[in-house]
Amino acid sequence: MEKKLSREHVFYAFSPDLEPAMQVAQGEEFVLETHDCFSGQLRSEKDLLDALDWDRINPATGPVRVEGVQPGDVVRVDLLKVQVVNQATMVTLPGEGALGDRITEMETAILKYEGGKVVFRDRIEIPMAPMVGVIGLAPAEGKVPNGEPGAHGGNMDCTLITEGASVYFTASVPGALFGCGDFHAVMGDGEIVICGAETPGEIRLRAQVVPALKGLPTPFVETSDLVSTIASASSLDQAGSDATHNMADFLTRFAGLLVNDAGMLMSLVGQLKVCQVVDPQKTARFEFPKWVLKEYGFELPN
Amino acid sequence: MEKKLSREHVFYAFSPDLEPAMQVAQGEEFVLETHDCFSGQLRSEKDLLDALDWDRINPATGPVRVEGVQPGDVVRVDLLKVQVVNQATMVTLPGEGALGDRITEMETAILKYEGGKVVFRDRIEIPMAPMVGVIGLAPAEGKVPNGEPGAHGGNMDCTLITEGASVYFTASVPGALFGCGDFHAVMGDGEIVICGAETPGEIRLRAQVVPALKGLPTPFVETSDLVSTIASASSLDQAGSDATHNMADFLTRFAGLLVNDAGMLMSLVGQLKVCQVVDPQKTARFEFPKWVLKEYGFELPN
Repeated sequence: MEKKLSREHVFYAFSPDLEPAMQVAQGEEFVLETHDCFSGQLRSEKDLLDALDWDRINPATGPVRVEGVQPGDVVRVDLLKVQVVNQATMVTLPGEGALGDRITEMETAILKYEGGKVVFRDRIEIPMAPMVGVIGLAPAEGKVPNGEPGAHGGNMDCTLITEGASVYFTASVPGALFGCGDFHAVMGDGEIVICGAETPGEIRLRAQVVPALKGLPTPFVETSDLVSTIASASSLDQAGSDATHNMADFLTRFAGLLVNDAGMLMSLVGQLKVCQVVDPQKTARFEFPKWVLKEYGFELPN
Repeated sequence: MEKKLSREHVFYAFSPDLEPAMQVAQGEEFVLETHDCFSGQLRSEKDLLDALDWDRINPATGPVRVEGVQPGDVVRVDLLKVQVVNQATMVTLPGEGALGDRITEMETAILKYEGGKVVFRDRIEIPMAPMVGVIGLAPAEGKVPNGEPGAHGGNMDCTLITEGASVYFTASVPGALFGCGDFHAVMGDGEIVICGAETPGEIRLRAQVVPALKGLPTPFVETSDLVSTIASASSLDQAGSDATHNMADFLTRFAGLLVNDAGMLMSLVGQLKVCQVVDPQKTARFEFPKWVLKEYGFELPN
């Protein structure tokens, strides 16, 4: 019988004190249904942000307890399938986001899905590229609201986190306590008005400890052709510096490169990129191509 | 007879006081040979940075006076052909760049060109992607060293500035006084160790005023499939914000989008990206796809 959590099993802050909603074995597949970031409260263009119940913002489905995970373990989460359903919602709010000083009217836009496209204003057909905005594990202590990104993951809004990707986290509590939500049918790097095409969805996942990667600078993403560090900080400058240093650490400590080779190759074929600039903590990533790692004889262990 | 400047015609700071090295008509093609950013001083791996004459860093070839350009004019510079020659050089220097705290040894690496690849350590064959690091016009007053980026252009290190692209600047002086140099055979966004594959090169160009774009937020880049603003500031956060606002201004003032549509589309299909984080002034860009502009009935005028 398939393990599946409906989108009624949500939490609003990552915390070691959460009760697990489900337990899975390492490597066992499971499915989570997710709400959009508004918990489905904005159903039409007449539903504006000023009527929102802000206590129900940024739900994540879970938490899922992964058997046998201990604090300090590096856990690889494989995103086997990511789907979005129904329709997407976008909003503008004066004063909010990277263009808050230019936006004068609160507005809600509904974007329909048609043949693999997300349709904006019944006119602009954007190829769908579903991604997961909030994904993470419980921190060691306290409560981190789902709207915040951090070392535990959370609201990183990283466009690499999509079907086929694997995301690596460091567990802080026994069982890891995993959760995710806040899918976007499509989103650009930056997330300028604080939202992508916000959408409910469904995701098929698998999680397991990778002992050989203990000490990996996390969060860390692997796609078919690249690896990427992710870091969040109060400034984009600091987040970028942290992501850059984490990649240098990965290349020297795990992939065995000399520091000068790592630095020069990061300057030649590495890409420092922006995830989001609209939360109090900004998020950056540093991407590095897997083909170069392969030339150095390195592949990520299973 | 083709108009061409050899790489002996260089300057080290953009300034209205420079004597033109060549004059061209609007729309007339011309060719510039360029030095690498070290003026060719590092020819082998034995030539280290500590022996460098720092007065000969970041040469740009020019300046080229473009007939009929007046202050306030928006000048489009078309990069018709960009070639790199000889070999590329990279360096590391403890304390410098985004990994200066990790790098302990000064080193020079020479990268050969073989069959369209840039070869690092005789082992890693990177597809060549020549780009122009320094490109700009004279500012209204003073001297801006070529190592600095700014409103006039300069050392923006934007990987979009390559063969086939057009770069738009606002002229500050009669004749514009254009120059460029600091080519890279390949470079990643961020330019982590302060250099890409530094190389001499040759470029074929054409410049002309575009009256219909007067007031365009510049510097601005156009490629076959996107437009991009570029902005530089003392923090990456500010540079990113400036690039974002400039794109919103372009979309609302020139392409005719409502501000909410501009913001939502920038959040959906726009990309806030990093150019470089290793100069005192950091550089960011905001990319927006041309196909969306076309759906709104807008094309850049000639």
